[in-house]
Amino acid sequence: MSVPEEPTSFLKRHIGPSPLEEEAMLKMLGFPSAEALTDAIIPRSVRALAPLQLPEALSEPDALVALRNLAQKNRIFRSYLGMGYSASITPAVIRRNVLENPDWYTPYTPYQAEISQGRLEALLTFQTLVADLTGMEVANASLLDADTAAAEAMTMCARISAIPESRRFLVSSLCHPQTVAVVQTHADPLGIVVDVGDPLRDGLPEENYFGVLLPYPATNGIVLDYTDTITALRERRTIVVMHVDPLALTLFRTPGELGADIAIGSTQRFGLPLGYGGPHPGFLASRSSYLRKMPGRIVGISRDREGRQALRLALQTREQHIRREKATSNICTAQALPAVVAAFYAIHHGPAGLRAIAESIRTLADRLANGLAEIGLPLQPGPRFDTVVARLPRWRRDALLCRAQAAGINLRRLPDGLGISLDETTREKDLLDLFSLFAEESGRSWRPPPAEQGASSPIPPSLRRRLPLLPHPIFHRYKSETELVRYIRRLSARDISLTTSMIPLGSCTMKLNAAAEMLPMLWDEFSQIHPFCPREQASGYQEMLGDLERWLKEITGMAAVSFQPAAGSQGEFAGLLAIRAYHRGHGEADRDICLLPVSAHGTNAASAAAAGFSILPLLCDQAGRLDLADLGKKLAQVGTRVGAIMITYPSTYGFFEDTLPQAIRMIREAGGLVYLDGANANAFLGLCRPGELGVDVCHLNLHKTFAIPHGGGGPGAGPIAVSPALVPFLPSHPFLSTASGGAIGAISGSPWGNAGVYPITWMFLVMMGARGLTRCAQVALLSANYIAYRLAPYFPLVFSNEAGLVAHECIVDLRPWKDLGIEVDDVAKRLADFNFHAPTVSWPIPGTLMIEPTESESKEELDRFCDAMIMIHGELEKVRKGEFPAGDNPVRNAPHTATAVAAERWDHSYSRERALFPLPWLKERKYWPPVARVDAVFGDRHPSCTWPKPEDPPSEKG
Amino acid sequence: MSVPEEPTSFLKRHIGPSPLEEEAMLKMLGFPSAEALTDAIIPRSVRALAPLQLPEALSEPDALVALRNLAQKNRIFRSYLGMGYSASITPAVIRRNVLENPDWYTPYTPYQAEISQGRLEALLTFQTLVADLTGMEVANASLLDADTAAAEAMTMCARISAIPESRRFLVSSLCHPQTVAVVQTHADPLGIVVDVGDPLRDGLPEENYFGVLLPYPATNGIVLDYTDTITALRERRTIVVMHVDPLALTLFRTPGELGADIAIGSTQRFGLPLGYGGPHPGFLASRSSYLRKMPGRIVGISRDREGRQALRLALQTREQHIRREKATSNICTAQALPAVVAAFYAIHHGPAGLRAIAESIRTLADRLANGLAEIGLPLQPGPRFDTVVARLPRWRRDALLCRAQAAGINLRRLPDGLGISLDETTREKDLLDLFSLFAEESGRSWRPPPAEQGASSPIPPSLRRRLPLLPHPIFHRYKSETELVRYIRRLSARDISLTTSMIPLGSCTMKLNAAAEMLPMLWDEFSQIHPFCPREQASGYQEMLGDLERWLKEITGMAAVSFQPAAGSQGEFAGLLAIRAYHRGHGEADRDICLLPVSAHGTNAASAAAAGFSILPLLCDQAGRLDLADLGKKLAQVGTRVGAIMITYPSTYGFFEDTLPQAIRMIREAGGLVYLDGANANAFLGLCRPGELGVDVCHLNLHKTFAIPHGGGGPGAGPIAVSPALVPFLPSHPFLSTASGGAIGAISGSPWGNAGVYPITWMFLVMMGARGLTRCAQVALLSANYIAYRLAPYFPLVFSNEAGLVAHECIVDLRPWKDLGIEVDDVAKRLADFNFHAPTVSWPIPGTLMIEPTESESKEELDRFCDAMIMIHGELEKVRKGEFPAGDNPVRNAPHTATAVAAERWDHSYSRERALFPLPWLKERKYWPPVARVDAVFGDRHPSCTWPKPEDPPSEKG
Repeated sequence: MSVPEEPTSFLKRHIGPSPLEEEAMLKMLGFPSAEALTDAIIPRSVRALAPLQLPEALSEPDALVALRNLAQKNRIFRSYLGMGYSASITPAVIRRNVLENPDWYTPYTPYQAEISQGRLEALLTFQTLVADLTGMEVANASLLDADTAAAEAMTMCARISAIPESRRFLVSSLCHPQTVAVVQTHADPLGIVVDVGDPLRDGLPEENYFGVLLPYPATNGIVLDYTDTITALRERRTIVVMHVDPLALTLFRTPGELGADIAIGSTQRFGLPLGYGGPHPGFLASRSSYLRKMPGRIVGISRDREGRQALRLALQTREQHIRREKATSNICTAQALPAVVAAFYAIHHGPAGLRAIAESIRTLADRLANGLAEIGLPLQPGPRFDTVVARLPRWRRDALLCRAQAAGINLRRLPDGLGISLDETTREKDLLDLFSLFAEESGRSWRPPPAEQGASSPIPPSLRRRLPLLPHPIFHRYKSETELVRYIRRLSARDISLTTSMIPLGSCTMKLNAAAEMLPMLWDEFSQIHPFCPREQASGYQEMLGDLERWLKEITGMAAVSFQPAAGSQGEFAGLLAIRAYHRGHGEADRDICLLPVSAHGTNAASAAAAGFSILPLLCDQAGRLDLADLGKKLAQVGTRVGAIMITYPSTYGFFEDTLPQAIRMIREAGGLVYLDGANANAFLGLCRPGELGVDVCHLNLHKTFAIPHGGGGPGAGPIAVSPALVPFLPSHPFLSTASGGAIGAISGSPWGNAGVYPITWMFLVMMGARGLTRCAQVALLSANYIAYRLAPYFPLVFSNEAGLVAHECIVDLRPWKDLGIEVDDVAKRLADFNFHAPTVSWPIPGTLMIEPTESESKEELDRFCDAMIMIHGELEKVRKGEFPAGDNPVRNAPHTATAVAAERWDHSYSRERALFPLPWLKERKYWPPVARVDAVFGDRHPSCTWPKPEDPPSEKG
Repeated sequence: MSVPEEPTSFLKRHIGPSPLEEEAMLKMLGFPSAEALTDAIIPRSVRALAPLQLPEALSEPDALVALRNLAQKNRIFRSYLGMGYSASITPAVIRRNVLENPDWYTPYTPYQAEISQGRLEALLTFQTLVADLTGMEVANASLLDADTAAAEAMTMCARISAIPESRRFLVSSLCHPQTVAVVQTHADPLGIVVDVGDPLRDGLPEENYFGVLLPYPATNGIVLDYTDTITALRERRTIVVMHVDPLALTLFRTPGELGADIAIGSTQRFGLPLGYGGPHPGFLASRSSYLRKMPGRIVGISRDREGRQALRLALQTREQHIRREKATSNICTAQALPAVVAAFYAIHHGPAGLRAIAESIRTLADRLANGLAEIGLPLQPGPRFDTVVARLPRWRRDALLCRAQAAGINLRRLPDGLGISLDETTREKDLLDLFSLFAEESGRSWRPPPAEQGASSPIPPSLRRRLPLLPHPIFHRYKSETELVRYIRRLSARDISLTTSMIPLGSCTMKLNAAAEMLPMLWDEFSQIHPFCPREQASGYQEMLGDLERWLKEITGMAAVSFQPAAGSQGEFAGLLAIRAYHRGHGEADRDICLLPVSAHGTNAASAAAAGFSILPLLCDQAGRLDLADLGKKLAQVGTRVGAIMITYPSTYGFFEDTLPQAIRMIREAGGLVYLDGANANAFLGLCRPGELGVDVCHLNLHKTFAIPHGGGGPGAGPIAVSPALVPFLPSHPFLSTASGGAIGAISGSPWGNAGVYPITWMFLVMMGARGLTRCAQVALLSANYIAYRLAPYFPLVFSNEAGLVAHECIVDLRPWKDLGIEVDDVAKRLADFNFHAPTVSWPIPGTLMIEPTESESKEELDRFCDAMIMIHGELEKVRKGEFPAGDNPVRNAPHTATAVAAERWDHSYSRERALFPLPWLKERKYWPPVARVDAVFGDRHPSCTWPKPEDPPSEKG
């Protein structure tokens, strides 16, 4: 049946089942071919009109050569552009053991605490790092970037404000341009008015602001002293947000010491490459009293059933999937892997090392300023950290920029001069190059003084950091590389990743992240490019973006793509803003209602709320399909206020509804536009095209469908594809000249989002080709149906289409055992004893598991998973029969730790062997849970989100 | 006391103990400073006359920049040079998960079977691969390269010959030039006469050869049909060795089918980069009846105490450390990591993939030949595999070479023409470039036919492979990358490596292999250089070799360095040959006795025998020092026959003898030269200089002292440094024009040995600098003495100097418990339960452990090890007191598997918890032995050294 692949084809490495296995699976399902199965799964009415047209697939080595050629079109200049993006050195030990290590980059978001202790520990260190640097009490486990963190801080201010009547937010005009832009984009749909001004220069305006954003240092390089300003603002009950450079805070007074309420920023310069703008770990830190109002994920300390300290995501009830439009934020994917790198960077250097790096940069910046002053340039006065700004007439500025370009140097172009931001990579020689550039232009023969003479100016006492820096032992314990390597490896060994076993997470598409896809990301030509460099230096990136846009347009059938959204949730936000802008542009600003099926991702609701829509839920019918009658009713009810509908397809109920075309027709006739959530795109690659179905905008999760790894909870990438009508409304950016007038503004700090990880998707698409992508979807469908078929006799299948078939995932029901006191969570934890990450738990239906195997898992692995589930079924039935007590059985007690099994006493109703090795193959491939069941309630009751001081037991905190 | 390092210094990452820890350790030993301790350890008479003079240490990022600049001086040409070195593609999944993974590159040689099952399994696959490809029954687990494998095959022929009276060996003149040279170098000291001739063209000579070496394909590209020749040779009882290209054997008749006795070669083109000549996995395969006569390591199948299949190094009694000068070979370090890569390469591609690669090369070669013939070039006729040879007058050859150079192409220069060898990376476009090169030179306007028309010629039936290719399931099971990654990771998780814990192997110096040292090795500019390319293309390598030679000369105080030896044993061989050549050159050819202290490495004896010396043992005195009285007696006894003495310093007894200067004086006065075994050089870096002590030659193990990882048993690197008198006698090479007339010939296939790993040592030295190297030695001394001090109350220290101090390692005595039936091996295995690799067992003193911690381990790790040893001592004492039975105690039963502990029954005299978690910190960092104690005797009784056919249980084999 299946044609064996060419031996050199990468496709056969990507696809899990061998041709023989595929045949056996199809036979079991009763289909002669994958095509026949596809036809029975996907309604003819939604099928693509023609096969995909993509370039012929390349072999792995040929694809690498092609990408190398493309990479070499990027030109690496010495960058002094700054603005929140500084060249940084990833210590080799972190590069090798984290960024080059699939144990770290392939795990999922750590929702299942017991099998995630390694990355949870690294993220707790990140939170401790950020809280310590900023002088705040708590920090989250990363946000998408500094600029969206600023926007998140603004909405947080609105939530916690003591003057809810105010809808005005003040942003300092000395913030970076993209920060101002991103805050404005987020403010507008919420009816927040953003004023831009300089409270330090001009004094506080009369307005009653609910919050204010102050840059520290400012974009012009000055480390401003806000002491009095903040006192005055706090008297007015204005919430103070500071946008900080965390490296500067190793030397300068912290926001906490200054009395600020919130600090935001990015730890990019803690070891993350520039990567043309991302991924970089944004952060938000605040007072512990605001903990429950903070956006993003927060790792907290709790304990397990055996009394160990154990970590888990804290306060999970706040998440969008529960709170929907009332969530604190629509952010789901964070920047977990970059945050892990930053945490290890801090551990690697320790406080003394970080301070030395910061002090060295400050010294060089002061020496640069002194030299330029001697050469005769009029400079912005200090105190400064890393940036020197010269005020120059335009003709002189342009002449200098021209000379700099010729010397392979990027300087920041300012309206009235030039900015020069130094970083960790700046060396003596670089300073000399800068001096000669400026001296030659000035026509002076000036000789720089020897390095020893150039001490830095003292930091004014009111600006000096007084808090001890990173006193916690975690930043002192792993100073030798040997110890650090072992620590990094010990942590990763605590987690289940794709290197362990299948991660069958419904709606998350944990497919192969192939090594060939991952290698190029760390090539200098990709990693060392500043997002605001002149476009011609990034020709390789631009060509790659062009390729990706062309291919994603072909795949989706849409007219244009924006790469600015750095995550699916940001894609939703951007797409909905574009719809809103479209309606406004057509004089229908009152189309402000977004219809959402009850089966939608909770994120959809949160995004729609952020984009200023009111939410109206839509019912599903008995079969789980969109209820067209209800849709008709709701449309009649809202009339011309209907703005959009957000549909996930295939739906989150795990099958292809045949009602989609009719639903889309109804919406469009009512004047609404259609947003398609592409989270499940892996089910229809090459088989359906949203554009042909009348969809107006859809986002694609490159970290799901297109092979970017999940990184333990990010980075993601959520570009949006739009129909011709929406093209004028795509996001713009202060450093992009090409956007149209109607554009929705900047939604991300970098014009192209997490560009640094796009080589992964480029490699994936180039090695797959059209036929390969279609095969991905077909085998994903086959594998999900194979699992559904094997499990159906044991666990009821919740939804399927008329033919009894599911899409690329299936929902199985655990509610039949609820009467025994067995929750779906118990089964999820028991799977860890079988080496498996749990499927998606209780979503979209409480009490169920949503299983998505993807195309990359072999039949053997699918069978191992089914065997595990069937064995668990047997255990549940033993509970029902009374062979195991309801309160003491292997499912309730899972996961089982080795220490418990090795203990003297074993008082359980089942054997030690059943606890640890319930199936024989586990003896060959056992994963060892490092903790027993984690007590989430205890942790939420005693929230502790930074490493406790050594003398504080965790239970006494908070 | 200790000055804290600069925050940016790499040294503080390399050194394990922090300054505070160092202070505490010194205090415990009663010394005010590391210098004072050093003075008490090393006799003043051997101390270096002046501190090291090396360049100022660079920080990690600056060192990487400096090396990048150097690398970029290498120029990557398209190589068609062939001669056993073919460009090859390392599949990304293998690069990332093996070559970039310290779990694979930092383990030690798998002598301790229980904690080495992962790499043993990969090596068993390598052996199966080689045996299958060659059609032989057994293969070893790699040799240093193809050409030394040829020499090893020759000596093996001599051992197994049925005509021991013959001392003549025939080498085909169609072998590669370096193969002929290396065989000659090895033959000469053994009194073997090597004739070079062409038995196929000229018929078999009258001589009665004990063995013959036949190339297949030949160096001129022809795949010769040896059927009749081999029949005739076997009738004469001549052993037939074939030098094969293993990739060709996927298509062509195998040596086994042709009736050959031995096949040798290199699996370099199975995924190993060119690396300027190495490291590449040589191999030797033969009939199972010759198993016990084969050189090198062999992995075999046995079983463990719980009845599982378990692997271990087979027939270990044959090793040099037991058989000394009677060993089958002096090889110790093999090419384990490259062999592992080759094994995974075969698993990755499977037989169909390998055959497709081979067939594609053969097709391209045939198309190239057809095209060149059409252009009018006179070609060597086929059948051919990958190489086309054109016979040309010299002027035309040179004109073509000149054009090729200009086009960035390397062709092989032959006396009467040009050779063009294709490889896995050759593409259609390369063929067109070659065609246009030749067509332009010939002045013809010739257009190549389209690719589809160029089928390859059929292989003549008598040359076609008939054996099935790689039918074993291991080559079919892991076809998807997902499955392969998990398999690779599962294997590595079975092993203890430096990422797990300290590997305290005496005499093996398992120090940090820093990530920054490892990264550059895989840069294209280092990995893609052919060893025989024109020298100007390898300027970066040559400059690196120049740096290394300069620095190693400074460190050793010697006059010159040869990098050709690819391992310490080869260094010994080369150094002793140089001594022999020196004596000959001075008319003293009868100086043929080598004095060897009983404390010497067994390899020393094997090397001396290979170099043609007779061995005379020297006694040690009660204190373990070289017995000067015995030395005097022996010198008097042998008179002018004394050629050399081989001394390890500090001695293998683990301390600095003060008798060294006197011993050296006595030897030199007797006319002998002094060889210093540098295995223990880590003890004296910057503190002693062999050259100043009167040493004539010493080798340095770059994979011990100079940070190259052990790779699970290789690659190593064993350059030799010599005094001015020996410089003329350093190794030469057919492709090196610079050697002197007295040179000893080629000892390795590549002129610079395992050049591909030298960037590691370069980085190490550049980041250490003079002070750093000296600190390495001082902290290594401190750490060993700290361990000795802590363990002394429990385990008697066997040797120390007068002050009671050891050098960088210490020997502790386990013989006091022998009467209880507890062997030192039991303690070694029990250490695995504590997460530790055993120290060196029963060497140099039976019943002892030799412990070497190196400078890279933290005090915490040293303490964990000491705590483990002390707890084991407690267990031994409980046996003595009868609390544990002699036959059932945690030491005798070690290591303990999780499956045993989880079993229903537990009938032991101690608890499950003591078995698995004897110390509390093990709960945080438990290593899980995958097998219980391995039964070595069973395995040797039923030798099985390839994967058994699925239907054969291992016990029925052999």
